[in-house]
Amino acid sequence: MIVRDFNKLKDTNRAVSDAQWTSVRMLLADDGMGFSFHITTLYAGSEHTFHYKHHFESVYCISGKGAITDLATGETFEITPGVMYALDQHDKHTIRADEDLVMACCFNPPVTGNEVHREDGSYAPPASAAE
Amino acid sequence: MIVRDFNKLKDTNRAVSDAQWTSVRMLLADDGMGFSFHITTLYAGSEHTFHYKHHFESVYCISGKGAITDLATGETFEITPGVMYALDQHDKHTIRADEDLVMACCFNPPVTGNEVHREDGSYAPPASAAE
Repeated sequence: MIVRDFNKLKDTNRAVSDAQWTSVRMLLADDGMGFSFHITTLYAGSEHTFHYKHHFESVYCISGKGAITDLATGETFEITPGVMYALDQHDKHTIRADEDLVMACCFNPPVTGNEVHREDGSYAPPASAAE
Repeated sequence: MIVRDFNKLKDTNRAVSDAQWTSVRMLLADDGMGFSFHITTLYAGSEHTFHYKHHFESVYCISGKGAITDLATGETFEITPGVMYALDQHDKHTIRADEDLVMACCFNPPVTGNEVHREDGSYAPPASAAE
């Protein structure tokens, strides 16, 4: 059994961040669960475009307020506590945080921890193969 | 993209419950994500023994207070907001809720929605094969 505490990990190297977000890696690929699990905070006033071409991701809003736009359809959905979105079509999307958004995120395949967001908003596939 | 709201689903047939817990199935196997995602509430004063022999599960505490005991080792860990446990060894365990525990749960393989907790605290494997 693995037991980890977000409040202890957020000041360690399991937390990754840039100026507009922080993500705490609660479970990564090497934990062997077949998915990874992250607590991600998007800061108020920020906007992010992501496109996980090689991953499925679900995102559940724990706290905060914002909106997500599906860039394929143009539809926008409000994000408030209790709302979940799931990128079952590897959907390219923009998230806007009106207040700090704290989100519980699951990735399949699991994130290894070595990915970087590429210019197109994607992570490389697990084997680092070409697109 | 799938968008679902816990606050709307909790009064529908995506919520399953017994006297001591309620679980809202935010994502199930047929959503095609490769994992399932659930918001589960364990009521204050209740205690539960589970043993997912055929599934990996991670559980993140959103709110409440309780404890988990690993029945193989006898170790007990406090559960407070921000604590996650992951049953990477299909660990048989007992959870005690001192206050209502609201937990974000991921299962791999994904739960289909047709499982029932068997007497030994397990779910059947996905194909319903023998133990």
